This record gives sequence, C-alpha cells and structure tokens, in this order.
Amino acid sequence: MGNTQIVGLVAGACTTIAFLPQVIKTWKTKTAKDLSLGMFSFFCFGVLLWLIYGIMMRDIPVIVANLFTLILASTLLYFKLSFKENT
Amino acid sequence: MGNTQIVGLVAGACTTIAFLPQVIKTWKTKTAKDLSLGMFSFFCFGVLLWLIYGIMMRDIPVIVANLFTLILASTLLYFKLSFKENT
Repeated sequence: MGNTQIVGLVAGACTTIAFLPQVIKTWKTKTAKDLSLGMFSFFCFGVLLWLIYGIMMRDIPVIVANLFTLILASTLLYFKLSFKENT
Repeated sequence: MGNTQIVGLVAGACTTIAFLPQVIKTWKTKTAKDLSLGMFSFFCFGVLLWLIYGIMMRDIPVIVANLFTLILASTLLYFKLSFKENT
C-alpha cells in the first residue's frame, strides 16, 4: 500500500469517525433541534454520489470512507426524523 | 470533462453546500449546543487530510470539494467556540 493510499484511508477514518460523537450525543440527549434537516438530507445524497464516484474511479479510500459515512449519516437522519417532536 | 469527473464535482457540490444551512442556522440561533465539538475538530482534520490526498492523487473533484468544505467546517468550528457561553 502506497503513502497516498494511507493518507486517503486515514482521511476517511477521520471524517467517518467524526460522525460517531454526533450520533452518540443525539442518541443520549434525544434531541436533534440544532441539527439541520436540510444539511443531513443533502449530505446523505452527496455521500452517495461520492460512493458512486469512488467506484467509477476504483479509488479504495473514497469507496470505503463514503460507505461508512453513508451508514452513520443515515443513522443521524433517522434520529432527526424520529425525535421530530422535540424540534 | 468526463462523466466521472462530473459525478465527482456534483458529489462535492452536495457535501459542501450541505454545510451552508448548518452555518446559517448556527449563526441565526447563536447556539451550537447540539453540535459536538469533538465531531467538528476531528472532521476539520479529516477534511484537511482529504485535501492533501486529492493533491497527491491530482484528483480535481476531491481537491475542490475539500477546499470549500474545510472553509465552511472551520467557520462552524469558530461559531461553536465563540458561542461557548450558550453550551
């Protein structure tokens, strides 16, 4: 594995793991008032496109990072919609 | 410009524009209580690494998207730290 791919995988790990505290915080507080619904819907769509782009480019770090980010971002979107009564 | 690059640029536009409603909402409400500081610090670092990866790969969509995302995410991080008294 080259240096470039390592940088890409570390980058992907960071931007993906970055969603974890938000997911945990939203789950614990059961409130997602300050999270924009617009942001997460649009973001999920963008991440899906990045995943398609990664597959077209056969770019492993882009594929792996966006697959995991898509799972976490979709979870946040689900929380936002479930905790709707608190908004 | 090939189809692949168009998909990448649209993906980048989506994930970048996705930050705008959050920046505007945080600015208007002057509260960033439900935004994790951990998330944004880690995310900014990850986006910086993606930018470096894009430069190493000479991947234009990755460079452009992460440059703009870094500017917006840093702005959110600045808001979070400025509105500290509300947390």
